[in-house]
Amino acid sequence: MNFIKELDGGFSVIENLKVSGAREGKYGVSIIVSPNSTASAVFTSNKVVAAPVKYTKNVLKKGIISAVFVNSGNANCFTGEQGIKDCETLVELVSKDLKLPSDEIAISSTGVIGRQMPIDIISKVAYESISKLGSNPEDSLAAAKAIMTTDTFPKECAVEITLTNGKTVKIAGITKGSGMIAPNMGTMLSFIVTDAIIPADEIKKALKNAADVSFNMIVVDGDESTNDTCLMMANGSSGIEVIQDGKIDSNFQEGLNYLCIDLAKKMARDGEGATKFIEANVYNAKDDGDAKLAAKSIISSSLFKSAVFGGDPNWGRIVSAIGYSGCDLNPDIVTIAIANDDDEVDLVRNGEILAFDDTPYLERAEKVMQSKKVIVNIDMDLGEGKATAWGCDLTYDYVKINAEYTT
Amino acid sequence: MNFIKELDGGFSVIENLKVSGAREGKYGVSIIVSPNSTASAVFTSNKVVAAPVKYTKNVLKKGIISAVFVNSGNANCFTGEQGIKDCETLVELVSKDLKLPSDEIAISSTGVIGRQMPIDIISKVAYESISKLGSNPEDSLAAAKAIMTTDTFPKECAVEITLTNGKTVKIAGITKGSGMIAPNMGTMLSFIVTDAIIPADEIKKALKNAADVSFNMIVVDGDESTNDTCLMMANGSSGIEVIQDGKIDSNFQEGLNYLCIDLAKKMARDGEGATKFIEANVYNAKDDGDAKLAAKSIISSSLFKSAVFGGDPNWGRIVSAIGYSGCDLNPDIVTIAIANDDDEVDLVRNGEILAFDDTPYLERAEKVMQSKKVIVNIDMDLGEGKATAWGCDLTYDYVKINAEYTT
Repeated sequence: MNFIKELDGGFSVIENLKVSGAREGKYGVSIIVSPNSTASAVFTSNKVVAAPVKYTKNVLKKGIISAVFVNSGNANCFTGEQGIKDCETLVELVSKDLKLPSDEIAISSTGVIGRQMPIDIISKVAYESISKLGSNPEDSLAAAKAIMTTDTFPKECAVEITLTNGKTVKIAGITKGSGMIAPNMGTMLSFIVTDAIIPADEIKKALKNAADVSFNMIVVDGDESTNDTCLMMANGSSGIEVIQDGKIDSNFQEGLNYLCIDLAKKMARDGEGATKFIEANVYNAKDDGDAKLAAKSIISSSLFKSAVFGGDPNWGRIVSAIGYSGCDLNPDIVTIAIANDDDEVDLVRNGEILAFDDTPYLERAEKVMQSKKVIVNIDMDLGEGKATAWGCDLTYDYVKINAEYTT
Repeated sequence: MNFIKELDGGFSVIENLKVSGAREGKYGVSIIVSPNSTASAVFTSNKVVAAPVKYTKNVLKKGIISAVFVNSGNANCFTGEQGIKDCETLVELVSKDLKLPSDEIAISSTGVIGRQMPIDIISKVAYESISKLGSNPEDSLAAAKAIMTTDTFPKECAVEITLTNGKTVKIAGITKGSGMIAPNMGTMLSFIVTDAIIPADEIKKALKNAADVSFNMIVVDGDESTNDTCLMMANGSSGIEVIQDGKIDSNFQEGLNYLCIDLAKKMARDGEGATKFIEANVYNAKDDGDAKLAAKSIISSSLFKSAVFGGDPNWGRIVSAIGYSGCDLNPDIVTIAIANDDDEVDLVRNGEILAFDDTPYLERAEKVMQSKKVIVNIDMDLGEGKATAWGCDLTYDYVKINAEYTT
């Protein structure tokens, strides 16, 4: 897709955007200032919803955001009325200090559930973060770092997109995940800003489309957080519209998908305790819905994830995971291959098992399974549905991180 | 429930029943001989179905079973036409040797997927097993042992039930699980025999009811096997009918539920790598369906299972798992307690968090979490629905067992 160009520098590629991050111990605060931007978001579907999610849903009704306040270390979830008051306090702080309308400030939190916000320390870190606002690559990186919890590396991405009319716009984003999608210290938060002009309701549609092929296609442990948020702003600084005749420019949508998939893959790669990255591609399923079921079932299977950790080309676990996913499957015609960047090996071809005992297939498959990146390719031979999902292996360290973390 | 009495001796408590087990290395064979019994079964819903499941579904159309052949070590799955032929060969062997009609012999397998059955060695072990057929407690135990794969202990149960009319009947069963419900070396197989008189179609209903509150309410890793089978026979040796006016005796159903729950709990307790047993009781949910969703979601959460392994009373993970289960939940009125046989501690009472920081609740909760058996009690305060689910912790050994097992 040569109309998408990846850029360095994260948020710094967008004009009229200032960001920052600061941290004190486990508490971090990131600030994103993008005055008078149209905005929309997708949120967790968990019925237990953190205070900042409730608060920000309300703010977004206006469709305009000028700043986003994000803190790590406390999820502000299961905190009752005090939780909402704390959102108001922090928003007021940002509003006063930056002279921005308080009803245009979104708030997002990640961290421990069921503790009131340590408002003093978070306010202190907030002031520090505000004082550092800037538009350089270091500022973007600082923002990406301040929202981290059990993440082992900061996650950002920026792209330049050549639209179908030849004009160019940019999108940048940061994300955190790790125990994705996980209730404690493992929430998924993503913040995306584009310099294109897009009405809020069109952002909503585009973001939903992108989330469906990216954030909704990764699994670390299948747990879904009370705080998951992906918020996107369009500050229009490029002066370029991406909606033509009521439809979004297809290249822009592709570019947004690309950015979200890049961020999602970084989350999967950084899954708690992960040593290997898994990609499951399902082709020729009955339809796209079936392909999604199959792909997600493979990367969700604890048995297969353990096999990947152990380097075992256990295709029986793959086919079984497809079998209980709910998708249509004919075992007599399915083809299952595993691959890395160097090799692709058919384990089962048109229903015939190739990789067993001392066959060269098994030997090659075992070698592929040693890679840091294991790709599973499934050809269902039933239709034209296709989907890709991403995940990571299940390791001793996943258990360790989650067994030893104390409330 | 004083109309249910647990008995020792497994299958030996049933008249007119002979069982046996033999093993050579990883290959085991159990034989259950119960001539001319009415029978029915519930099977895996995985779309990849092993040859013995297909074969036995066909045998059961007649509704009469005289013997069951079970082997461990090879699942006879993804084995094409040869797999069905191997079923026929083994059934023929049993039929000839025991002079039983071949169309009344069921077959069941567990073990590795995608390898043809090593028919010579399995035949050899089959002859040995047949030669040992008997009706003593040791024979029942041998049968329970021969079907084990990664199980660490044999699982059997027997009960005597006083019916509503005062007469007594017995039910006995064996099971294997371990990586339940898992595609490789971890299939759930259960075999149940009663001395009551019941038509095959009534067995089907009763067994379905019992499975819904037992085998279908346990989770080890969420993977579902291609071979899962629970087969029940009624040999009528007591001479007592349990169907009156077209309805099953309610005490009999309760007794069957009791037996299946006992077997299911033993499977959960023996989950691969498990060090702790978890029971999740959900009370006062909107309805029973909602209660089931919530209970199963708790015991399926990798995050909560890791917390149990680590002894951490992490109620945030419990409430979050309920939140994404799909059931109705009002966080402001929910009560969450954990318990063991000695103590019960409210972590959250009517939406108020009690267990945090240095409260005595937290200290007691941490002590409860050290137990081998951790009970989670949820009061949703929304209706009258209730359900119980069972599971086990997620441990280093689960990962080890499934990472190191080689195809």
